[in-house]
Amino acid sequence: MSISLLQQERHRYLPKVPDLLRGDFRRVCARRGLSTTAVADYDALRSLFARTYGQPLVNFVNASEKNEDSPMETAPEPRGLRVAIVLSGGQAPGGHNVIAGLFDGLKRWHADSVLIGFLGGPAGVLSGDHIEICADRVDAYRNTGGFDLIGSGRTKIESESQFAAAAQTVTRMALDALVVVGGDDSNTNAALLAEHFVNSGISTKVIGVPKTIDGDLKNEAIETSFGFDTATKTYSELIGNIARDACSARKYWHFIKLMGRSASHIALECALKTQPNVCLISEEVAAQSLTLAQIVQSLCDTIATRAQHGEHFGIVLVPEGLIEFIPEMKALITELNEVMARRAQEFEALDTPDAQRVWIEQALSASARAVFNALPAEISTQLLADRDPHGNVQVSRIDTERLLILQVTERLAQMKQEGTYTGVFSSIAHFFGYEGRCAFPSNFDADYCYTLGLTACLLAVHRFTGYVASVRNLTSSVAEWAVGGVPLTMLMNMERRHGSQKPVIKKALVDLEGMPFRVFSRRRASWALKTSYVYPGAVQYYGPPAVCDEPSVTIRLERPAPAANSSFGHRSS
Amino acid sequence: MSISLLQQERHRYLPKVPDLLRGDFRRVCARRGLSTTAVADYDALRSLFARTYGQPLVNFVNASEKNEDSPMETAPEPRGLRVAIVLSGGQAPGGHNVIAGLFDGLKRWHADSVLIGFLGGPAGVLSGDHIEICADRVDAYRNTGGFDLIGSGRTKIESESQFAAAAQTVTRMALDALVVVGGDDSNTNAALLAEHFVNSGISTKVIGVPKTIDGDLKNEAIETSFGFDTATKTYSELIGNIARDACSARKYWHFIKLMGRSASHIALECALKTQPNVCLISEEVAAQSLTLAQIVQSLCDTIATRAQHGEHFGIVLVPEGLIEFIPEMKALITELNEVMARRAQEFEALDTPDAQRVWIEQALSASARAVFNALPAEISTQLLADRDPHGNVQVSRIDTERLLILQVTERLAQMKQEGTYTGVFSSIAHFFGYEGRCAFPSNFDADYCYTLGLTACLLAVHRFTGYVASVRNLTSSVAEWAVGGVPLTMLMNMERRHGSQKPVIKKALVDLEGMPFRVFSRRRASWALKTSYVYPGAVQYYGPPAVCDEPSVTIRLERPAPAANSSFGHRSS
Repeated sequence: MSISLLQQERHRYLPKVPDLLRGDFRRVCARRGLSTTAVADYDALRSLFARTYGQPLVNFVNASEKNEDSPMETAPEPRGLRVAIVLSGGQAPGGHNVIAGLFDGLKRWHADSVLIGFLGGPAGVLSGDHIEICADRVDAYRNTGGFDLIGSGRTKIESESQFAAAAQTVTRMALDALVVVGGDDSNTNAALLAEHFVNSGISTKVIGVPKTIDGDLKNEAIETSFGFDTATKTYSELIGNIARDACSARKYWHFIKLMGRSASHIALECALKTQPNVCLISEEVAAQSLTLAQIVQSLCDTIATRAQHGEHFGIVLVPEGLIEFIPEMKALITELNEVMARRAQEFEALDTPDAQRVWIEQALSASARAVFNALPAEISTQLLADRDPHGNVQVSRIDTERLLILQVTERLAQMKQEGTYTGVFSSIAHFFGYEGRCAFPSNFDADYCYTLGLTACLLAVHRFTGYVASVRNLTSSVAEWAVGGVPLTMLMNMERRHGSQKPVIKKALVDLEGMPFRVFSRRRASWALKTSYVYPGAVQYYGPPAVCDEPSVTIRLERPAPAANSSFGHRSS
Repeated sequence: MSISLLQQERHRYLPKVPDLLRGDFRRVCARRGLSTTAVADYDALRSLFARTYGQPLVNFVNASEKNEDSPMETAPEPRGLRVAIVLSGGQAPGGHNVIAGLFDGLKRWHADSVLIGFLGGPAGVLSGDHIEICADRVDAYRNTGGFDLIGSGRTKIESESQFAAAAQTVTRMALDALVVVGGDDSNTNAALLAEHFVNSGISTKVIGVPKTIDGDLKNEAIETSFGFDTATKTYSELIGNIARDACSARKYWHFIKLMGRSASHIALECALKTQPNVCLISEEVAAQSLTLAQIVQSLCDTIATRAQHGEHFGIVLVPEGLIEFIPEMKALITELNEVMARRAQEFEALDTPDAQRVWIEQALSASARAVFNALPAEISTQLLADRDPHGNVQVSRIDTERLLILQVTERLAQMKQEGTYTGVFSSIAHFFGYEGRCAFPSNFDADYCYTLGLTACLLAVHRFTGYVASVRNLTSSVAEWAVGGVPLTMLMNMERRHGSQKPVIKKALVDLEGMPFRVFSRRRASWALKTSYVYPGAVQYYGPPAVCDEPSVTIRLERPAPAANSSFGHRSS
């Protein structure tokens, strides 16, 4: 096996951990805070999670912090624990460090502890397919990207037969706890599983770990999901490099779509890091009910104004989920999904794209048809062609960056005729996603994930279930990070899915009142017209801490550290 | 202005320089070696370059190395020099360090020296548009990527009127020397300009600097062009990240096209760094006269074999220029270019893509028509649509990675029916180019470029013209690097361009007998079937020298350092 020199060095990196977790775990006590509710739909959730709803927040503290006002529970007598971990959903940098932290924590707790990894994601929990994670194995993956130690998968555990299969596996394997590393859906499943196990008298505890590069799994107590920091640093490296190319060559507009699903956190973070000319924010588009034509016109206005100043180049960031947040497009997609679901056989029987197009046009409402027909042919074709097994349009596969380029090109041609644009428009489209999901975790994510693993271990030791590991004060030094657990139901509400109300963790979209968006919206007008690019460069793992260890701009704006830190990744000079 | 934290730190990086260049420049002497010839076409070139053909190689040495067998020339008495620099063609990481090295060298030579930067590439030489590069300006750009300090451009200086305009500029500005930073075309222009100036009695010397991420400007004395190291490290970071994603998710084949124009150096270097399942090498395709169908079949065989082992994922690297090296495609493109040039008006008069297609089909020969019709519609449409101002097909804009995916998908469907393939094929296409051209230069490129700038300064001080700066022993420690000059005519031959024979620097394509390709071809069969990915990670500027300072694998295989160094970017364990 060949291993890169960086990887060899990274194997030796020792993640920084909070002071609390450096000492003897037997001295770590659990302090229960106030009991919790949910995001909304309290009654429905209370009845669905009769045993696990409303549990208190948990903070781990040192035994020396004992005080009478807030009692705390000491750790039980150490014994070997049997804990399993499963990675669920898309890759995020740092997953291997969660495993390493959990492994090290369990061994520190008791040398007889065993860590098991389910293979290939939740499907492994159902089938029981697993490996034991031993020291040699985990050492080879410390501080590396990827989920390849045990793999991942997208199977959801949500039906009764699946619960039964999972229960059988954890019982047969005599697991004290199952740690589920995942995003909103996977942690929803973890909550359901926790409730199911309690109800069924199964002693296996279920603990979640907040993973997703998308950054949309957070609340007051979950400051960020892991992977967001590294992924956005990787994308920002590339955006910065392209921006430097743009203002060296001075002849291209680069339209860069960024992964992130519905939420625009990734695009916003990258914008704060790199200061592009334009960054579209889906949540704002929805809030203002912008039409595609309005978005295109706004882009064209920026392009035209820059052209007046001789700047025939620029950078536009496009969040992956944009198209669903444009009201008219959302309505079209909803109608397409409904028509195709209801009349799937008719549609499938048509054997040419042209016949499909004619058929769909007559099947759509007048307003949806108008939107559909206004789209460039290559995009409307994608809407018909790229559908998932349920017949739904795969929004993430729509080339939104191409759509914008095509519409902008057309509109600029009109403006040229009208005399409101005099430039030359050349464009290049990019899409970044897979480039960042498996990068070597930044020092921040390496430290954060390792600490999450240790925290999950403590939650297992203290016999909590239905909790997600929580590490807070992330903008302070690692020594001061606080660790604990948040009841999963606290993150939930009820939403309509596949025709019925389901309990789900509510996605945290970009808050238009939050500091990250407010800082962005204050500055963007100046970035649009005046080239103000910042070039973050490649993620650095060695060197000055300011370069190597800083957390994301988003979290620093959301949660300013006690010591003022206003640099957000660069300094003004 | 906002500056990233990394950029602030990089401003302070002090490039390492050869021992020879650390001391007093007055102690640096020029030793002339043997006189040179050219790559081919000696007589034609000797007559075209009557004054500058056949000049000797030049090595700079310390005055203390004086010996009777090889006489050397001491430096002239220091005086303030007026030198200008121009950046030409596509961006490459390190251009700013060439400027910084040249600036520092000139100031060390004499405090009254002046460095001028022509703006916007060679067009600036013609118009005289320039800035003086002062200390503040250059300091703000040390060790940064991009060409934005003075910009670049693609204007060629090759006509008599252009020579006259350039002569007027350099005379008016009383330049002692003009330093041209560029690739093969730009250095060809530099050679012509040098000859023209000598012929015209103009005392301005012309000195080239070998720039191109493509790595195709090299010979015995030019070990590598600058930018290749950083660009390939940046692409390899991304390829490694995607490879890790591929073997974590286990469900996608990623087809990654890489910039590099005709030569496959970039793809080969990235393959040596990351060990993908497949890396196509254009030069090999041409040497073996492979058809598109053969390439596709070979890909399908690899995909099918991996599927048998349960590996429904993989990485395929595709050099940008591939399509032109497939004989049947080359013939088709040549015919298309000819037809469109000869009958442009007829073609332009057709107003629909379908009409154009019908017209072109009847205009092509039977064999070209067969190739054209066998292409997927979206690719043949590109061949007709994306043409440059001369009507030529823009090969670099053809989505070769998409072409391969479409053909592979089709062929795998056939193989499934034939029973020779049982897997599931899902693919994702990527193209990397702009991401790497303006990255912060690696330590290697930062050191190399700074040394190239110092070397260009010495060539100016010693009054050489028609030379390209040469830094050798690049696989040894920087202290031992040797510096000198290579006559530009030594890199040249005659080639047919736009219908007539022109002197040009011969592109160095991948040598199928060279060590980089031989090592690759020995190992690729094993990489194809057994997942052997290496993850180089982000370019590191701080930390262990092995991680931060290593030159490219290509150069280390081409020129093993005296001390055996077999690691090529990773170690086997």
